[in-house]
Amino acid sequence: MASKLKLYDYTDAPSPRRTRIFLAEKNIDYDCVQIDIREKEQLSDAYKAINPRCAVPALDLGDGTILTENVAIATYIESQYPEPALMGATDIERARVLEWNWRVEYEGLMAVAEVLRNSSEMMKGRALTGPQNIEQIPELAKRGAFRLTHFYGVLNTQLSNNDFITGSDFTLPDITALVLIDFANWVKVPPDESHSAIWDWYKKVSARPSAKA
Amino acid sequence: MASKLKLYDYTDAPSPRRTRIFLAEKNIDYDCVQIDIREKEQLSDAYKAINPRCAVPALDLGDGTILTENVAIATYIESQYPEPALMGATDIERARVLEWNWRVEYEGLMAVAEVLRNSSEMMKGRALTGPQNIEQIPELAKRGAFRLTHFYGVLNTQLSNNDFITGSDFTLPDITALVLIDFANWVKVPPDESHSAIWDWYKKVSARPSAKA
Repeated sequence: MASKLKLYDYTDAPSPRRTRIFLAEKNIDYDCVQIDIREKEQLSDAYKAINPRCAVPALDLGDGTILTENVAIATYIESQYPEPALMGATDIERARVLEWNWRVEYEGLMAVAEVLRNSSEMMKGRALTGPQNIEQIPELAKRGAFRLTHFYGVLNTQLSNNDFITGSDFTLPDITALVLIDFANWVKVPPDESHSAIWDWYKKVSARPSAKA
Repeated sequence: MASKLKLYDYTDAPSPRRTRIFLAEKNIDYDCVQIDIREKEQLSDAYKAINPRCAVPALDLGDGTILTENVAIATYIESQYPEPALMGATDIERARVLEWNWRVEYEGLMAVAEVLRNSSEMMKGRALTGPQNIEQIPELAKRGAFRLTHFYGVLNTQLSNNDFITGSDFTLPDITALVLIDFANWVKVPPDESHSAIWDWYKKVSARPSAKA
């Protein structure tokens, strides 16, 4: 790992923030290239040559090798920079980290994205990330909000019984969930006051220096 | 790993088949409990106590510890039964396996599920897995078919340049993609004849004994 990492990023987007927080927790220095999503720079030929999926984050390992998708990036970084461990210390913990990360992503983040991308004026024709233009489905925005309320209940129960999502340690799903809550706040579909375990946990993880990443 | 694994399964569903093929490739013996999805047994209180997400697969490690979500199950099994390696031999290969598995799942399997669950008479009120009843959105079925055609192009290109999805070895994303193609055949949204690299690969992976699992 002699080469410096280069992150293709967009400061305001939730997905690359997951990678930024992960890198900050590991205290890794890296170069950062902004891809201006508002100007649709992710759809440019230049960026398609880097990531044909037209999405951020993408991580250049320093030798031109590009990794995309948060779980792949996190897994690789964890293998090269094991400390502090963010993906579990034992085999069963590592499985739990992936299980919860999948749930927070699929049941949480994707639901908020459904709300935003299928209702916002700015996202017309961009209801999904990727090279294709996809029209909005307003009913999907409503469905996203509905399934979020269920997931907040699940997450609140989990955090009522644990300091962090997978137990006593801060791990990858906590990063995904922190990004989820901030994204949900912005889209105006946050957990409500009854989800007190989420808010207690949120206060704690938001106070970590990495949350500023 | 003295205890025998117990898989909560439903033979006709694509998700648990991913786990069955993974276990078959590892030549692992396990007990199997059928959860009758057609009869909505996954929504019973008895099964909710096993997996509150009301989905199959769920894997009991033999001591009552339950893992859900395919990627978590595969990661744990790989750690306990490393041979044959199905999730990569090097750090970068392991990252690629997770990257492609995510793509095949999100861009492929979920799109076929969108088609089926938002159009089939049988799936009315069950447009998503989980404990909540979710109404169908017919436009989402159309969107699923549309984004599938794009993904088939991506997959065909990848398989034109590689024996298997991540390179020269059969790995987890090949299992996910085999299940995707059989599911897509059944839902009548398969790749077309022009996707010849997919069909060549499909013939090869379907001939593996594990494909019968």
